[in-house]
Amino acid sequence: MTVKAYGAYAGDKPLESMDIVRRIAGPHDVKIDIAYCGVCHSDIHQVRAEWAGTLFPCVPGHEIVGRVSAVGEHVSGFKEGDLVGVGCMVDSCQHCADCNEGLENYCDHMVPTYNGPTADAPGHTLGGYSQQIVVHERYVLRIRHNAAQLAAVAPLLCAGITTWSPLRHWKVGPGHKVGIVGIGGLGHMGIKLANAMGAHVVAFTTSESKRDAARALGAHEAVVSRNADELAAHAASLDFILNTVAAPHDLDAFLALLKRDGSMTLVGAPASPHPSPQVFNLIMKRRSLAGSMIGGIPETQEMLDFCAEHGIVSDIEMIRADEINDAYERMLKGDVKYRFVIDSASLAD
Amino acid sequence: MTVKAYGAYAGDKPLESMDIVRRIAGPHDVKIDIAYCGVCHSDIHQVRAEWAGTLFPCVPGHEIVGRVSAVGEHVSGFKEGDLVGVGCMVDSCQHCADCNEGLENYCDHMVPTYNGPTADAPGHTLGGYSQQIVVHERYVLRIRHNAAQLAAVAPLLCAGITTWSPLRHWKVGPGHKVGIVGIGGLGHMGIKLANAMGAHVVAFTTSESKRDAARALGAHEAVVSRNADELAAHAASLDFILNTVAAPHDLDAFLALLKRDGSMTLVGAPASPHPSPQVFNLIMKRRSLAGSMIGGIPETQEMLDFCAEHGIVSDIEMIRADEINDAYERMLKGDVKYRFVIDSASLAD
Ligand SMILES: [Zn+2]
Ligand SMILES: [Zn+2]
Ligand SMILES: [Zn+2]
Ligand SMILES: [Zn+2]
Repeated sequence: MTVKAYGAYAGDKPLESMDIVRRIAGPHDVKIDIAYCGVCHSDIHQVRAEWAGTLFPCVPGHEIVGRVSAVGEHVSGFKEGDLVGVGCMVDSCQHCADCNEGLENYCDHMVPTYNGPTADAPGHTLGGYSQQIVVHERYVLRIRHNAAQLAAVAPLLCAGITTWSPLRHWKVGPGHKVGIVGIGGLGHMGIKLANAMGAHVVAFTTSESKRDAARALGAHEAVVSRNADELAAHAASLDFILNTVAAPHDLDAFLALLKRDGSMTLVGAPASPHPSPQVFNLIMKRRSLAGSMIGGIPETQEMLDFCAEHGIVSDIEMIRADEINDAYERMLKGDVKYRFVIDSASLAD
Repeated sequence: MTVKAYGAYAGDKPLESMDIVRRIAGPHDVKIDIAYCGVCHSDIHQVRAEWAGTLFPCVPGHEIVGRVSAVGEHVSGFKEGDLVGVGCMVDSCQHCADCNEGLENYCDHMVPTYNGPTADAPGHTLGGYSQQIVVHERYVLRIRHNAAQLAAVAPLLCAGITTWSPLRHWKVGPGHKVGIVGIGGLGHMGIKLANAMGAHVVAFTTSESKRDAARALGAHEAVVSRNADELAAHAASLDFILNTVAAPHDLDAFLALLKRDGSMTLVGAPASPHPSPQVFNLIMKRRSLAGSMIGGIPETQEMLDFCAEHGIVSDIEMIRADEINDAYERMLKGDVKYRFVIDSASLAD
């Protein structure tokens, strides 16, 4: 089946309309009519070949929501018309320790939703900037939000789970004081989720202008991290910090805010290294610096259900597919509150 | 009471014999005739003023063992003649969360055994390179080893607890594959302790010549970390790494050996920073880089009891006090297996 998509033929070319082929749904497959697809920073890095190994044509997009249009004969969990989502992965080995624990995101054979290895033409996966996608049922998520919220649910599939997974893994909850560093696509979800988990949330931003926005998102306190006095007021007081900033920056300024046994977890990888963190800062309070990558399928479902129950969605700006190149430029300037979402209906125009 | 000690009057002066004053034992104090004192790298940094804030005269030494010669009227846990030890601290606030949890080492008011604030003359604490010491009973440890092993017990008070505490905190035990990086004063204790805890121990050294020594200490495997192939054979296979190397080095080479959710804990702080670790290495397997500093009093007692039960002591070279300056030079060349211990009897000569 040929469907419309938006992608690029080379790293230095803009994205444009193209036709791509989706496989016939197999017995375990779910065929999805995509309604919306969120736009992640990873999309830009991959399609512009800023990361190694981009395969062209490249169709980005891993924050996919839509409705089931058909299911394979062995699919029991989904039926035509269901609201569903697909996130950052569409396959994995399904039998390693990671897969067995529901942490398919850490499987050595995890297949990303775009630019991953596949037997389907053209030999690599093509993402959600398209009209349809066919995905093995294991990697399809149920969406229990109202259909009217669907567009704003899309970013939960990457930005939501990427922040949810470490918040849960490090057991954030009532009685905890939690820092969220950076108030962008990831950070704005981190604030909403940590707040809903019952933590006292402190947002850290470099920009005075984002202070009120952080509070509006659910931060109990908002700190401008360029102000040393403001930072110092939180010294050795935080249980956990979720650091969403991918640009190289001074990690010590935040590590010093952790209590004994506190952890700061990074979910963004900078293109050039952060300044090396001071070992003394780790040693003197048994602190940890950690990383976390997306999340597994069961915890993604748990996050979606939690968000449906708590009325949590992303703050979005809807765009047409042909506005994607401009949207990328705005994202690189931090000019989006807080996630662009492509209206997939615009692909047909 | 004036007692003999060995210390320095300035950072650029060698250590020499000197007389120091010990306080009269108060109601909660234990007065100890020091038999032996281990020699730690920290001693060198502090007495040579390589760390900020060294106060002179400086008498180093925080791996102290000896016999109780008197106790204050309220002391119930110790009596004259008992074999005891004193480690890296001689006081703390005794009422904060850290102290209440028995983690006095992380108390903001922890008083180091030397160079710490005290009301005693000369206004800062003087360490174990001396004939006697007077210490509050809370910071005195019971030694259950045979008296004949006493000299080799001394290094347990710093090198032992500094490696024991993180091994215990990160729950090392049977079924775990544990790396110990560096085979010096700390590392050789790490190997012995991790082995006795039941873990499969892999020692990492830069020196081919230490391979056999590492096995003799209890390592099940010994890897020369300059050999990329040897390292690669352990990729993503270790549950925990205890890194005892204070010299700046490539942390990524070791982080890459950790399984998903593995931690590498640093117990040495380099004078200049390590090369900045790659965030990608942390993110892709949810790894942590942590630090740990000495250990608390209850866990130090637990470690000493464990070592007495398992027949574990340090490998030592005994020296006279007047050999200390030469011993420092040998330590800086890594020429000691694995800890110098001062025979305190030599102070009287
Ligand atoms: Zn993403
Ligand atoms: Zn797998
Ligand atoms: Zn020491
Ligand atoms: Zn305290």
